[in-house]
Amino acid sequence: MVKPLVSIIMGSDSDMSVMNQAAEILKEFKVPYEITIVSAHRTPKRLYDFAENAHKRGIQVIIAGAGGSAHLPGMAAAISPLPVIGVPIKSSNSIDGWDSILSILQMPGGIPVATVALNGAKNAGLLAVQILSVGDLQLRKKMLDYKDKMNSEVMDKIKKMNE
Amino acid sequence: MVKPLVSIIMGSDSDMSVMNQAAEILKEFKVPYEITIVSAHRTPKRLYDFAENAHKRGIQVIIAGAGGSAHLPGMAAAISPLPVIGVPIKSSNSIDGWDSILSILQMPGGIPVATVALNGAKNAGLLAVQILSVGDLQLRKKMLDYKDKMNSEVMDKIKKMNE
Amino acid sequence: MVKPLVSIIMGSDSDMSVMNQAAEILKEFKVPYEITIVSAHRTPKRLYDFAENAHKRGIQVIIAGAGGSAHLPGMAAAISPLPVIGVPIKSSNSIDGWDSILSILQMPGGIPVATVALNGAKNAGLLAVQILSVGDLQLRKKMLDYKDKMNSEVMDKIKKMNE
Amino acid sequence: MVKPLVSIIMGSDSDMSVMNQAAEILKEFKVPYEITIVSAHRTPKRLYDFAENAHKRGIQVIIAGAGGSAHLPGMAAAISPLPVIGVPIKSSNSIDGWDSILSILQMPGGIPVATVALNGAKNAGLLAVQILSVGDLQLRKKMLDYKDKMNSEVMDKIKKMNE
Amino acid sequence: MVKPLVSIIMGSDSDMSVMNQAAEILKEFKVPYEITIVSAHRTPKRLYDFAENAHKRGIQVIIAGAGGSAHLPGMAAAISPLPVIGVPIKSSNSIDGWDSILSILQMPGGIPVATVALNGAKNAGLLAVQILSVGDLQLRKKMLDYKDKMNSEVMDKIKKMNE
Amino acid sequence: MVKPLVSIIMGSDSDMSVMNQAAEILKEFKVPYEITIVSAHRTPKRLYDFAENAHKRGIQVIIAGAGGSAHLPGMAAAISPLPVIGVPIKSSNSIDGWDSILSILQMPGGIPVATVALNGAKNAGLLAVQILSVGDLQLRKKMLDYKDKMNSEVMDKIKKMNE
Amino acid sequence: MVKPLVSIIMGSDSDMSVMNQAAEILKEFKVPYEITIVSAHRTPKRLYDFAENAHKRGIQVIIAGAGGSAHLPGMAAAISPLPVIGVPIKSSNSIDGWDSILSILQMPGGIPVATVALNGAKNAGLLAVQILSVGDLQLRKKMLDYKDKMNSEVMDKIKKMNE
Amino acid sequence: MVKPLVSIIMGSDSDMSVMNQAAEILKEFKVPYEITIVSAHRTPKRLYDFAENAHKRGIQVIIAGAGGSAHLPGMAAAISPLPVIGVPIKSSNSIDGWDSILSILQMPGGIPVATVALNGAKNAGLLAVQILSVGDLQLRKKMLDYKDKMNSEVMDKIKKMNE
Repeated sequence: MVKPLVSIIMGSDSDMSVMNQAAEILKEFKVPYEITIVSAHRTPKRLYDFAENAHKRGIQVIIAGAGGSAHLPGMAAAISPLPVIGVPIKSSNSIDGWDSILSILQMPGGIPVATVALNGAKNAGLLAVQILSVGDLQLRKKMLDYKDKMNSEVMDKIKKMNE
Repeated sequence: MVKPLVSIIMGSDSDMSVMNQAAEILKEFKVPYEITIVSAHRTPKRLYDFAENAHKRGIQVIIAGAGGSAHLPGMAAAISPLPVIGVPIKSSNSIDGWDSILSILQMPGGIPVATVALNGAKNAGLLAVQILSVGDLQLRKKMLDYKDKMNSEVMDKIKKMNE
Repeated sequence: MVKPLVSIIMGSDSDMSVMNQAAEILKEFKVPYEITIVSAHRTPKRLYDFAENAHKRGIQVIIAGAGGSAHLPGMAAAISPLPVIGVPIKSSNSIDGWDSILSILQMPGGIPVATVALNGAKNAGLLAVQILSVGDLQLRKKMLDYKDKMNSEVMDKIKKMNE
Repeated sequence: MVKPLVSIIMGSDSDMSVMNQAAEILKEFKVPYEITIVSAHRTPKRLYDFAENAHKRGIQVIIAGAGGSAHLPGMAAAISPLPVIGVPIKSSNSIDGWDSILSILQMPGGIPVATVALNGAKNAGLLAVQILSVGDLQLRKKMLDYKDKMNSEVMDKIKKMNE
Repeated sequence: MVKPLVSIIMGSDSDMSVMNQAAEILKEFKVPYEITIVSAHRTPKRLYDFAENAHKRGIQVIIAGAGGSAHLPGMAAAISPLPVIGVPIKSSNSIDGWDSILSILQMPGGIPVATVALNGAKNAGLLAVQILSVGDLQLRKKMLDYKDKMNSEVMDKIKKMNE
Repeated sequence: MVKPLVSIIMGSDSDMSVMNQAAEILKEFKVPYEITIVSAHRTPKRLYDFAENAHKRGIQVIIAGAGGSAHLPGMAAAISPLPVIGVPIKSSNSIDGWDSILSILQMPGGIPVATVALNGAKNAGLLAVQILSVGDLQLRKKMLDYKDKMNSEVMDKIKKMNE
Repeated sequence: MVKPLVSIIMGSDSDMSVMNQAAEILKEFKVPYEITIVSAHRTPKRLYDFAENAHKRGIQVIIAGAGGSAHLPGMAAAISPLPVIGVPIKSSNSIDGWDSILSILQMPGGIPVATVALNGAKNAGLLAVQILSVGDLQLRKKMLDYKDKMNSEVMDKIKKMNE
Repeated sequence: MVKPLVSIIMGSDSDMSVMNQAAEILKEFKVPYEITIVSAHRTPKRLYDFAENAHKRGIQVIIAGAGGSAHLPGMAAAISPLPVIGVPIKSSNSIDGWDSILSILQMPGGIPVATVALNGAKNAGLLAVQILSVGDLQLRKKMLDYKDKMNSEVMDKIKKMNE
């Protein structure tokens, strides 16, 4: 079995439909990943164990999604030396997403979280790929191809519109 | 030495001038307390140890202040069974205090944090006294006196204005 | 008949579906409570009488929910010496809940309100239990069990996901 | 002694410099007024007595200023049948004034508060004059003159700029 | 025919369902009123003529509702010496109502608008009644009765809940 | 004397230091302009006269700056057929500029205001030049030169930094 | 074939239903236009080419719509000397439109974008017509007629209401 | 000369004092970097050239800081395949930083920007180090040491406080 390089964690299974978009990107780029629930508030010990050991298991990037008072990404970043990508989620107990965004983004000096857009799990996946591309030229090449494909898709739409 | 009933913790020593206002209230009500720094982000292990053991040491109420992505009160509440009072602090790395407030207030169902106003450490101290008054009629009496005193102070100002 | 320890009040019967979540927690923890309507704006006298007498009737904690210009929790806290838990409600006449939150949270020095998340009545119930646990070790034990149960529920979900 | 027609109240003497601007307008229009402190939170009984009796004493308009969780105007409006003008104050414990504004403005159906701009005590005074002008044609005339004077002052500035 | 004392104006017929709530209050209090469309932006001349002449026709209070960049209440107040009540409307082209509220509320010194809650046309009607009660003791009595009725309605609900 | 093509108006002389930045741009591009005070709230008649006649006097673009409940740009646009550029001003009676921005930006369908950044009078001047460039190739050329100059200034700074 | 004077561009075909409202206005005023997709993020090269050449092809005004981190209008304005009208779009990945508005409005000194209301493509079309009216008296006349028609439509509604 | 691995760019030299904090972190970790000005708005061509070629020059991570309508990070991310870290800057033309944050954070699906806190350039530097640690165990070790040092500094402060 291939060991995962990226670990996708989320505070609750209700975040799964959003966070799966990160997983789909990693599948598309053939990056091995794991996806599971780690709740900062309901399973704080599990969070601590997870974050302390992730890099020892070979994980290179953590993607953490959470809503409301979203402490999961920041606490993972406090404990782990790995780059942590935070996905603010507009969950049912969130005030239009502002709480999720500010809880994740406004980390104090010393403990960065790489925050993406509200519900931006797809971009979290792409960012993980870009991070792994550092020192992996093949993955870099795939990312360049991905960008070309996005470009082509828009150009095709334009062509159709013009016809 | 008297064992503390209230533990006042804060994320950084730059929060001390605000958080001391809670201590002053407790002193005024003769409630034994301790005050120290516990950083969710820079000393996560200390946070876990603190929150797991506070109630075993006889602490009855935790007052936790933090600014920006303020995870300290919520993480203490995740780990400890004690009532946790959260004080959002308008620190230098805060966006007008909105980040501190929302990070502390918007806790998910299951893990309450008793949030007070921005920089409202004085009220955190008073709330701790009110909580300890449950089953301590003498302290309840002191709280009634405190309210009378506030009332009298306003009435005195009015009298002076009228003269 | 058991005398209630917690009084759940709300500004309008339209707040009942939210505030009932506090009642359900108290039932679960076998804490005797009462639940009723007290409108700061439409029944100001009733509010005054309620808040002045609650502690004399043996009430130990007040949970007050209100939306829009939410004055009920703050006025109860102004009059009563008891700890008051405020629940901001996203009612139909509220601007995304911001008005309810700020009206309840930003109390001046001297009169604390323990504010929970928007529509966070469940957490208000849990906070009331935590407050009553001060000096009631049996209730404290139940709270520790409650936290364990939350933890187990997440762990069970994870097990199922892995299978 | 002339009986006051307008009562200017405020939550704290720190609001005096703002609220005095309402008094100055009333002086300018020769409308008898009183100005005093009534704190919803620290002197709730005084608030009830004040609001219940104001109209019996001949008061026709209440101007109430408060900051933060500003409950004074709304509670006065809940108890008194008089028109209540609310002045949100950007006090030191206010979040850029948003809390004061929303606490005063967002009153539920049934209990209006005539809210003016943040720190807009001058306009509160003018609004009181306009209200008293209903059925007092002389005061209406003065208001028309006041508007003419404002117009002239701008026109004079323009003339000077042009020279 | 009875001459109207209150003029209800609005920027667009899409505001009618909200603004009718002001009319219903006036009907209930038997206060003669008129209701019509005056658009600051599409019929600026009509606005000017309306506002310059309203007080000459015997109108005593103007109620003006508008959404988005809501200029109608403020421009009416700029031109007319009458008290103007502004109703911010959460119209389809409004950003959660914030634009309507701030456009109406934040008038400069010299030109007050008595702003009520978002979509608060009912309260605008009640405020107009309170203003007309100045010097009309019969209307004042009706307002006191109205407040009693609100109180009774809540008390009845409570009685039913208790049964 | 050269007839002005651009009219810069503002609600108050306290806006002059900001609005002068538009004038300086027009001077730099040698576009004839006038600058004066027109207050929507204190000189409404002057506003009507101004806006009704501007295009008849040969004015091609109106630049209007205002703060707080900023009605000047929108009312000018309601009355005049000319393009109106709105400059939201963070005046002393403004809530961090949000009121100015939303009052100017959120115009209803049918009456556009070309809104620039908070205090962005310089850009208002440049936008006026761009508008006048339509059909004036010489002015277009100057605008291209202006852009080149901005570019060069940055490049010079970079060169200095590198040395 | 008539050469277009106005170019309507948007970041994504999901913006088409909003941006078409600009096209409809231009059709109504018989102003030749083009409408197409230019994505700042997915087709950055196409954006550069478009913006560098638009004025050389005879385009006089650019209307650019985008949502979320909306960079299209500002980048077009950075590259092209033409007046650029920005339409903030409340797309699915936008936070109530605030991100779109602020990304477009808050351009730095030197590079103006003429921002209209959220989803205000209709007004973008009208603003383009007003800009083209500079030096085209026939178009100016049409704009005056358009304003008259809006006025008449309101007056007709009022007539119907009165009957 | 060592080839830079990280490129720090900013929109204006007024952002230098903030962005230098990223450089200081890189110096501390002995990561070769370059620092320069690239303005999306004033030097768009330079931006294109920079972003298209950065990865070809061996750059592995881009750190881009900008304020107001902050387009630099997002446009760099649109053109370059490298991970881009965005630093929102509270510049003088920013509305409390909200515009900078939202312009950088809310990127559409397909083009991620790793956003850090307002003025959080220090964390941008640390995030760059964490990214480079992927596949560089020595750098990972340094990051673990850095975290230990932060922890120790807090522990030392606590010790001092206790003495």
